[in-house]
Amino acid sequence: MRPNRLHDLISLNKPALNAWLSCNSPYIAEVLGHCGFDSVTVDLQHGQLGMDAVPSLLQAISATAAMPLVRCSENNFGEINKILDSGAYGIICPMIDTRQDAERFVRACRYPPLGARSFGPARGLLYGGSDYFNAANSTLLTLAMIETVKGVQNIDDILDVTGLDGIYIGPNDLAISMGIAPGGNWEDAALGVTIRHIIERCQSKQKYVGIFCNDMAMASAMKEVGLNMLTPGNDIQLLRSAATARLAQLRG
Amino acid sequence: MRPNRLHDLISLNKPALNAWLSCNSPYIAEVLGHCGFDSVTVDLQHGQLGMDAVPSLLQAISATAAMPLVRCSENNFGEINKILDSGAYGIICPMIDTRQDAERFVRACRYPPLGARSFGPARGLLYGGSDYFNAANSTLLTLAMIETVKGVQNIDDILDVTGLDGIYIGPNDLAISMGIAPGGNWEDAALGVTIRHIIERCQSKQKYVGIFCNDMAMASAMKEVGLNMLTPGNDIQLLRSAATARLAQLRG
Amino acid sequence: MRPNRLHDLISLNKPALNAWLSCNSPYIAEVLGHCGFDSVTVDLQHGQLGMDAVPSLLQAISATAAMPLVRCSENNFGEINKILDSGAYGIICPMIDTRQDAERFVRACRYPPLGARSFGPARGLLYGGSDYFNAANSTLLTLAMIETVKGVQNIDDILDVTGLDGIYIGPNDLAISMGIAPGGNWEDAALGVTIRHIIERCQSKQKYVGIFCNDMAMASAMKEVGLNMLTPGNDIQLLRSAATARLAQLRG
Amino acid sequence: MRPNRLHDLISLNKPALNAWLSCNSPYIAEVLGHCGFDSVTVDLQHGQLGMDAVPSLLQAISATAAMPLVRCSENNFGEINKILDSGAYGIICPMIDTRQDAERFVRACRYPPLGARSFGPARGLLYGGSDYFNAANSTLLTLAMIETVKGVQNIDDILDVTGLDGIYIGPNDLAISMGIAPGGNWEDAALGVTIRHIIERCQSKQKYVGIFCNDMAMASAMKEVGLNMLTPGNDIQLLRSAATARLAQLRG
Amino acid sequence: MRPNRLHDLISLNKPALNAWLSCNSPYIAEVLGHCGFDSVTVDLQHGQLGMDAVPSLLQAISATAAMPLVRCSENNFGEINKILDSGAYGIICPMIDTRQDAERFVRACRYPPLGARSFGPARGLLYGGSDYFNAANSTLLTLAMIETVKGVQNIDDILDVTGLDGIYIGPNDLAISMGIAPGGNWEDAALGVTIRHIIERCQSKQKYVGIFCNDMAMASAMKEVGLNMLTPGNDIQLLRSAATARLAQLRG
Amino acid sequence: MRPNRLHDLISLNKPALNAWLSCNSPYIAEVLGHCGFDSVTVDLQHGQLGMDAVPSLLQAISATAAMPLVRCSENNFGEINKILDSGAYGIICPMIDTRQDAERFVRACRYPPLGARSFGPARGLLYGGSDYFNAANSTLLTLAMIETVKGVQNIDDILDVTGLDGIYIGPNDLAISMGIAPGGNWEDAALGVTIRHIIERCQSKQKYVGIFCNDMAMASAMKEVGLNMLTPGNDIQLLRSAATARLAQLRG
Repeated sequence: MRPNRLHDLISLNKPALNAWLSCNSPYIAEVLGHCGFDSVTVDLQHGQLGMDAVPSLLQAISATAAMPLVRCSENNFGEINKILDSGAYGIICPMIDTRQDAERFVRACRYPPLGARSFGPARGLLYGGSDYFNAANSTLLTLAMIETVKGVQNIDDILDVTGLDGIYIGPNDLAISMGIAPGGNWEDAALGVTIRHIIERCQSKQKYVGIFCNDMAMASAMKEVGLNMLTPGNDIQLLRSAATARLAQLRG
Repeated sequence: MRPNRLHDLISLNKPALNAWLSCNSPYIAEVLGHCGFDSVTVDLQHGQLGMDAVPSLLQAISATAAMPLVRCSENNFGEINKILDSGAYGIICPMIDTRQDAERFVRACRYPPLGARSFGPARGLLYGGSDYFNAANSTLLTLAMIETVKGVQNIDDILDVTGLDGIYIGPNDLAISMGIAPGGNWEDAALGVTIRHIIERCQSKQKYVGIFCNDMAMASAMKEVGLNMLTPGNDIQLLRSAATARLAQLRG
Repeated sequence: MRPNRLHDLISLNKPALNAWLSCNSPYIAEVLGHCGFDSVTVDLQHGQLGMDAVPSLLQAISATAAMPLVRCSENNFGEINKILDSGAYGIICPMIDTRQDAERFVRACRYPPLGARSFGPARGLLYGGSDYFNAANSTLLTLAMIETVKGVQNIDDILDVTGLDGIYIGPNDLAISMGIAPGGNWEDAALGVTIRHIIERCQSKQKYVGIFCNDMAMASAMKEVGLNMLTPGNDIQLLRSAATARLAQLRG
Repeated sequence: MRPNRLHDLISLNKPALNAWLSCNSPYIAEVLGHCGFDSVTVDLQHGQLGMDAVPSLLQAISATAAMPLVRCSENNFGEINKILDSGAYGIICPMIDTRQDAERFVRACRYPPLGARSFGPARGLLYGGSDYFNAANSTLLTLAMIETVKGVQNIDDILDVTGLDGIYIGPNDLAISMGIAPGGNWEDAALGVTIRHIIERCQSKQKYVGIFCNDMAMASAMKEVGLNMLTPGNDIQLLRSAATARLAQLRG
Repeated sequence: MRPNRLHDLISLNKPALNAWLSCNSPYIAEVLGHCGFDSVTVDLQHGQLGMDAVPSLLQAISATAAMPLVRCSENNFGEINKILDSGAYGIICPMIDTRQDAERFVRACRYPPLGARSFGPARGLLYGGSDYFNAANSTLLTLAMIETVKGVQNIDDILDVTGLDGIYIGPNDLAISMGIAPGGNWEDAALGVTIRHIIERCQSKQKYVGIFCNDMAMASAMKEVGLNMLTPGNDIQLLRSAATARLAQLRG
Repeated sequence: MRPNRLHDLISLNKPALNAWLSCNSPYIAEVLGHCGFDSVTVDLQHGQLGMDAVPSLLQAISATAAMPLVRCSENNFGEINKILDSGAYGIICPMIDTRQDAERFVRACRYPPLGARSFGPARGLLYGGSDYFNAANSTLLTLAMIETVKGVQNIDDILDVTGLDGIYIGPNDLAISMGIAPGGNWEDAALGVTIRHIIERCQSKQKYVGIFCNDMAMASAMKEVGLNMLTPGNDIQLLRSAATARLAQLRG
């Protein structure tokens, strides 16, 4: 099976730089893959796209060296099965608050006996290779989002679930759950402490840990702490930052 | 945040006239918005369209003065989140039978602490404005469909759920639930009594109440009773009524 | 080959009642086909759809008893070939002003030696049947639009082109070409006389003649004159007329 | 209501030969329908397509004599409702392990009082006919997939659920559930015995039974045993077998 | 008719800042419109999209304050008619080399007697308003691209064509036509002189002149010279510049 | 620039085995690419797809080792430019009858000074690489279809056009042009002699020559003669041959 570069980067002690796709354009997906990101994550949760768009977006990413990932819209067995069958090499699952949530997520991602994923890998077979069934369980990356106070409280239980590779931190929902407005200063005492606690728990249990970064200051700080995956903003934020800078320069 | 005209119409004591879109054509959506309806509801439940079509349909409605609403396909957290992120200004949720159903619906529609909606408003931010997070909970309309005998029995419990704005009556499923064929005479003793009971409960609790009308006689009667929202048939019914009238005239 | 009902209606001396599709929804296409129209014309010229939408729209019409027609976007060889390969049973071609225009149109529609259509009927074969190649030239309907003063002047030349079945009158462009505003009273002296002249030339040469009708008064008048095909408004006009009538009734 | 040919084939004691569509091309769907299959099943579970594609695919199948079926992505009320509203004449539901699963499946497929399907048949009305509501419960085919050891253990309970027409066997997931690699020799002692046991239970209870066949040897064997529905591979397997045979011949 | 802000900006002596869309995502189109550009141009020539995508992209732009423009794929009557019917408020036409080319372009854009555009404005009527037919000829902007040596030689003839509003300079094709590699230093003696000559001819004849800018240095210089429209890169360039900067910062 | 494997195969004296895609499914495109074909040709002429589908189909092929080619719908400058900008590595152009036709085709395919292709390679740059502009003219394959008696008469003139790589023979249109029914025995005296004559002219002028084969007997014969490219049927023919064989076996 085609190896998952994200696993390799762990042993190289290098963070995966991850792009975040929230529009439904396969061309944009391919452009991001060619920019040099290690992975491109299709955002089915907040992105402006649905399940029908996923196969073409993953094909576009597959035409580049970037690993194709998907954030599913929720912890749903059928949807996660479909995403994997379309060739995703990893799933980021939102709103994992308990061990039961994490077990349900793993159940959808792994073939028996580890999980209950149904067989029919379709595009996964094309992208992954003919030995897909044997190697999928160890190749595909499963990341649970910790983004509520409850999730933080249960983090050790969550991290102990067999078949779960690690955590992807959602700082905005986490802030809201703590009563802090989203998009603000992540280093705000309570939020910063909580984020660093999540990271510490993952690292102490030798689990994968990634994070969505609202700005580059956050990305740089997170790189320092040794995160495995950094997402420096999504497609829209990248586009808007460049567009508004140019408009300001020409209007100013 | 862009105000929700449907709230304004309440204080003006005027019913919102609502179009119902069951095809996946953004052009038809925009045409309906330009006809003068106060809102256009994209029907994800029985409409011939899926989640992938929603963003373009809401964009089309956003190019008009009509408020963009969606009837979700079921009381599903992930789907409702996606719909709101695409810029819907209200959700009509089918099959709310109990207080628990209503609470689950509200949980999906409102940001914490009122609910558990995940943050990432995407197109909602474009259409609603930069203060979306602060104003969304009070701006977006949440209507639960009462369309079973069980729902009618639990209506007071349902109406008491915090964060639920009101009820949208589904007369056809309600009829079936009562053992009456759908599409028939709504004033049929049992059905008419039940519908008027639902309306009375909403009005006595000062909650929003709307209804889908199978024909214009029903719409006129409902207007008399002071409903807040009237849907005078869906796109297909409008199209068929005009087409068959013209065919009859030319064939007759 | 599946017979073309539009040919049969000629011998029955009955006008074909034709629906006009300007949106890209296969569901709307199928609904129109089920309303009882004899044919449904997909409008590639002014409709809000492009060539990619044509196959699905023709499939939808093929699931009904109505004959699938297309108005091409212009007198273009490649496009007309593609439309026919997708299973259209007739082409209405805009802006035919001269014999040369008409010959070019026929060249695109008919297989050699009558024309130069390229072979590869694809969906045409599915819908038409395995003897498609032998029967297509005599089955598919070819209608040239006369809609300019120049076209009227050359009508006899145009009608004499072998392989052309007849004329479809475009009253709005014809009006503009005569210096009259579109959408007005078609019986306006000059316009009415011209339209009746076109009809008379077609009928005297025993050629097929159809027309787009801006309103039902026009459709009724045209039926009286014995036209072979009447289009009583397009999908948008049907929808708007029903919607605005209902809105007026509820607002009035 | 348009009769369901799959019911007729039972009384004729003939197996339905069923095509399996895993791509999102309406043209391929129509081609398969024209090949002579009795039914074409759109695979929403492992197919590379989502809910938005379903209406056009069912329209394409409706333009042929084949019955339109869908395998849903999971046992989900909202999705199954949508599929039926789009005109499917049968649902194959994966992963039915218990009587409760089967009851939930039937609840989504049947109108009250047998189930809880919501009314709004949309395209179903176009394809089925105006008496759809009255005849749908007895016309539409409901097949539960038995594809786990647990499902086999509960097969008698499952078969006894009112409103369930029968079973569709998924040999690959069943193999995995038994600890056997998928796609191998189905006659492998344990797997063959289990499959024959499932068939025997269905036949002894006079329930419908169909199966997906990995190869033609399996299909022939299953025909011998008297299965009601045989699926001789999916679209991709058919295409690949022809393509690789031709490539081998030209390269060899 | 809704006024064309691009005309207003001329009298205000302010350059229109124009976004350039080369992907087929309506969400990206709407985002660009909300960034504060005065117009968004859908690129049908080199963009990764075709005619079917145009209506939804223009709807998305119509939900913002930006004016919707389209660069057509070539000087084609049917395509330009379709684009305008979809509500574009201006056309940028590539490869105008001669007066005849410019006349053909104007013929497609203007209603008679100025041109030969066919009537059926569809979405144009929704976006523009009910007086569309009367005001379209004076409202819609027509810009011819000068991008070859031949076009430069004929610039005075081109600028004199009635109904043509001005010129949009394509520096890359112009460079190639002069034997210079595209994307290089636009101030390269020969190229810079030629671009300044085109601008001078437009300004001396009081015609509109815009340009595509490969970088911000070029955009600033062009602003100094008083161009009416500046395009500071396309969507892909904006996205890549932001993405590669962030990647470099995190990798460096 | 990524090398064009089709050029390499010439020097290896091996025929390119070419798949032919006539449906609009990117999944089918990718499947064909993985079957082992040297190239996959998207058929824009007779295929059931339009320009909007091309980018996603070419992305799908780009995720495999097969070279992405397109048959354009006709000899049209704008369309050919768009196809190449989407990353096609070769164009097969139908209906080349004269030297002038061939020159027009080359003009659309090659950058100046060899042709007049407009610069803006978009996806071509992603797939081909950053030196695309410099290497495109020598990398992209241009094949003119000879498929009429007139084309055969002018073959030497056509082959002498600079920038044209060779010929792709269309046996069905050629047969019709000669008064022979399409799809019959290609060895039929007149047709076989003509096809062999075309091949001989190409080979004597050391030009590339390919052919569409209606069946495997034809493909084998053509391989013997040393053709550079063989297309052993299209996707639909492959699918139908496998489907009807399996149906016959199970029904027989």
